[in-house]
Amino acid sequence: MAETDPTQINAALSNPRADMEALDDLERRLFSLRYAMAEIGSLGPVIDPPKATAQRGEALAHLQQMSVEALCDPATGALLDRLSQEPELVGETRLAQIKVLRRDRASLLDVPAEEQAAFSRLTVEANDVWRRAKAANDWTSFEPYVDRIVESMRRIAGYKNAEKDPYDVWLDEFEHGTDRAFYDRFFSQVKDCVVPLLADCMASRHKPTHKCVDGSFDVERQWRLADDLARLEGLDMDALWIGRTEHPFTCGMSRDFVVVTGHVYADNLLSNVFSILHEGGHALYEQNVDAAYAATSLAEGTSMGMHEAQSRFFENLVGRSEAFAAPLLAVLRKHFPGQFARVTPHLLYLAENCAEPGLVRTEADELTYPLHILVRYEIEQMLFSGEATAADVPRLWAEKYRAYLGVSVPDDTRGALQDTHWSDGSFGYFPTYALGSAFGAQLKAAMVRGGVDFEGACAAGDLAPVRAWLRDNIWHWGRAKDSGELIQAACGEPFLASYYTDYLTTKFTSLYRL
Amino acid sequence: MAETDPTQINAALSNPRADMEALDDLERRLFSLRYAMAEIGSLGPVIDPPKATAQRGEALAHLQQMSVEALCDPATGALLDRLSQEPELVGETRLAQIKVLRRDRASLLDVPAEEQAAFSRLTVEANDVWRRAKAANDWTSFEPYVDRIVESMRRIAGYKNAEKDPYDVWLDEFEHGTDRAFYDRFFSQVKDCVVPLLADCMASRHKPTHKCVDGSFDVERQWRLADDLARLEGLDMDALWIGRTEHPFTCGMSRDFVVVTGHVYADNLLSNVFSILHEGGHALYEQNVDAAYAATSLAEGTSMGMHEAQSRFFENLVGRSEAFAAPLLAVLRKHFPGQFARVTPHLLYLAENCAEPGLVRTEADELTYPLHILVRYEIEQMLFSGEATAADVPRLWAEKYRAYLGVSVPDDTRGALQDTHWSDGSFGYFPTYALGSAFGAQLKAAMVRGGVDFEGACAAGDLAPVRAWLRDNIWHWGRAKDSGELIQAACGEPFLASYYTDYLTTKFTSLYRL
Repeated sequence: MAETDPTQINAALSNPRADMEALDDLERRLFSLRYAMAEIGSLGPVIDPPKATAQRGEALAHLQQMSVEALCDPATGALLDRLSQEPELVGETRLAQIKVLRRDRASLLDVPAEEQAAFSRLTVEANDVWRRAKAANDWTSFEPYVDRIVESMRRIAGYKNAEKDPYDVWLDEFEHGTDRAFYDRFFSQVKDCVVPLLADCMASRHKPTHKCVDGSFDVERQWRLADDLARLEGLDMDALWIGRTEHPFTCGMSRDFVVVTGHVYADNLLSNVFSILHEGGHALYEQNVDAAYAATSLAEGTSMGMHEAQSRFFENLVGRSEAFAAPLLAVLRKHFPGQFARVTPHLLYLAENCAEPGLVRTEADELTYPLHILVRYEIEQMLFSGEATAADVPRLWAEKYRAYLGVSVPDDTRGALQDTHWSDGSFGYFPTYALGSAFGAQLKAAMVRGGVDFEGACAAGDLAPVRAWLRDNIWHWGRAKDSGELIQAACGEPFLASYYTDYLTTKFTSLYRL
Repeated sequence: MAETDPTQINAALSNPRADMEALDDLERRLFSLRYAMAEIGSLGPVIDPPKATAQRGEALAHLQQMSVEALCDPATGALLDRLSQEPELVGETRLAQIKVLRRDRASLLDVPAEEQAAFSRLTVEANDVWRRAKAANDWTSFEPYVDRIVESMRRIAGYKNAEKDPYDVWLDEFEHGTDRAFYDRFFSQVKDCVVPLLADCMASRHKPTHKCVDGSFDVERQWRLADDLARLEGLDMDALWIGRTEHPFTCGMSRDFVVVTGHVYADNLLSNVFSILHEGGHALYEQNVDAAYAATSLAEGTSMGMHEAQSRFFENLVGRSEAFAAPLLAVLRKHFPGQFARVTPHLLYLAENCAEPGLVRTEADELTYPLHILVRYEIEQMLFSGEATAADVPRLWAEKYRAYLGVSVPDDTRGALQDTHWSDGSFGYFPTYALGSAFGAQLKAAMVRGGVDFEGACAAGDLAPVRAWLRDNIWHWGRAKDSGELIQAACGEPFLASYYTDYLTTKFTSLYRL
């Protein structure tokens, strides 16, 4: 007897209405598990007592396992296959759900469970070693983990797609539709623009200064300022919880409940201001996904790059613009009247935009930031291609920081050990940070072409028109469209890095009077 | 062909080691779902922004559904059946897990899903109506819901056990091993003791006064006091989170993470003190379940009554004892030095123990508290037996409050509408509150017989010996033993209400110089 054809089984089982109910049920389960993981995972470390850590980890691991099992269940695969054959009945929203569910499923399914489990164990251990290595400035203790993680990620990439270069697999995983060819083009444009531009800025006799915002600022007042900044940015305060953590982050349970955290330094007010505006951009995205997508797989931002586009849009394109300096200054004056009495909008604008080549990515200004990413991208590529091993990293790091940023790396703590990403197995993630900035510049240009008075909105401190455009063109769509599709639809052209390099060139040429 | 015998199927499938792994896996799933529901459900209303409510409700409902499905799965039933036939292999802990899992399963399984769903919808609606009825002092709008809920609970009880009286089914549901015969005996002893004792107290010319603790107390200082009270009680502060809510509650995610909440009134310091000690008693129970039971169905308090025994033990037997007045006063003085400068331990003891017949259960003192419960127990019984309907409740309420407490009920808001329980469908729950106080008195007597210097520990403000006895005899066991078994094992005799009535008689005879 001939083997049974799975298509026939599916056809025989077909009951599209029951299938749609099954899809809705699957989505509700996945939603509730995601909701639980997001709330426990994001609020837990912020408010739980210290002993809670281990059991919280247990609970999270099992919730994750349930989520993976629901998605990997063969019945789920068959269900999604059957439904995708009924596009008219299923409708646009459910088709989009099916698309992202199939993609999520594929990315889990192809990797043997033991391989996945071994990788999880390896990264948990590596993260712990990294933490101590960073504190002790001891690259050699972390070094073997880097090689093992790269090796493991190469193997896992092979399971996902044996035809493709392993690093390409991971780039695509973090930002659908990207690969080395894409990023090579992008970063070469960035490098060609920013490296000489930065050198010119450094050689300029007209350097802006941040002296007017130096000083000590009461920490509790800074938290009240943070609330007002979130309001100025246009966040829905009835759907927002602002917390305090070592490292700022944003986490959305749903459009109706987004957590934003920050860290306030008494001696660095602007760091807090731009951190809140940055996380607030992420939160705006989550709060403005179409309500019709609630409790489905579509109800979150579409990708890392597009999320970073929103956060850096509000941090830099809005927050560090000359037009926005006046409304921002008004809020600063409200909370620190004495300290801002003699600051003008123009002085504040200059203070926000001092380009200073430094060692630490998270402290970088708008101009030097992409160079920090470039260094990481180039080293990741070399590790994956075998051109370098972990032992070469400190030397490569020092060479590239010298070449692109003109700084000497005095230790690995402020060098290759500064970021947690590699220890988490997130090779391929860094490039999305730079890409997001470039997405933002292109979106701004399209918005202005589309008739939004961007400068006027910033100057008035009423960002409603800016938000409305982003909501309609980006936020609203959740995961229903990929970042490439969104850019094409919103801008009427594919992604172009030139908007970003043009923006940086214009802004810093003027600031530094080049 | 003969029908297949399920026992044979089970025997054929039998692979005890694989079964034990399946049990552990089931427990981990149930644990992680419970953990998620507890954290989202308890912290959500405390810290989430207002709009989060609806989606949180969605997420909680689906998590609950997943938990019910895991337990009700026929495979789970077969698994538990097979394992219970291998007691030696399975061992004591897993046997206890199987016992409680089978019980939890049975209580879900017997009720048709539609009936259960209809009941959930009814109580959600009833709770909403109750809230408005209470605010408007409008019994008649709530009245039909009481009848419908009783009717529905009678029907559900029939599914659970058609042989048994429906109210007995619900009493057993909330406190395993209890029924009307048990509570009738208990409450008749309580009534015979407390009603005349209270009348005598009210007639006494030597009434204690709370004048020395009257005044206004800074709210933020009261929160710092709450921390110190939790420390004095012996809570593990590294496994505790204290929050602020309208109604105090305790919720344990695990022994390593317990949430306690309170509400502070500037003009009622003692209310805060005893509320914290009360919730702290619940929290001590959760924090001290055997670590070996972590992440299993055994890792929580065994019953409502036994939980209330712990909370009322620390609130009353410890907290309102003469011996504990000195260490308590020391903590009060630390935070309010001026206001407690002239208060003596004896004056504080008197202030803590003013018996005052009142209208509201949650504000009742130690002596009158069980009478509030008695009223509810008697009315619940009449509603279930058909002797009364909801329309009779306000009249019955007034008659019984007059007879037992000697007070007139001026309105339903402070009468039959005061508690949320009936609107939630928790008929049969109230009696556990009174039972808990009685458990506590018997446990204290056994502890003293066992050599614990209870008064000495209270006087020294070092409750370690008291906690050690309760940990070994009660807390430690989690749900592995029922409350009846725990009492028998800890006290060497079955439950006896006379410890409670003797304790109240001795204490209040002395306080009121009868």
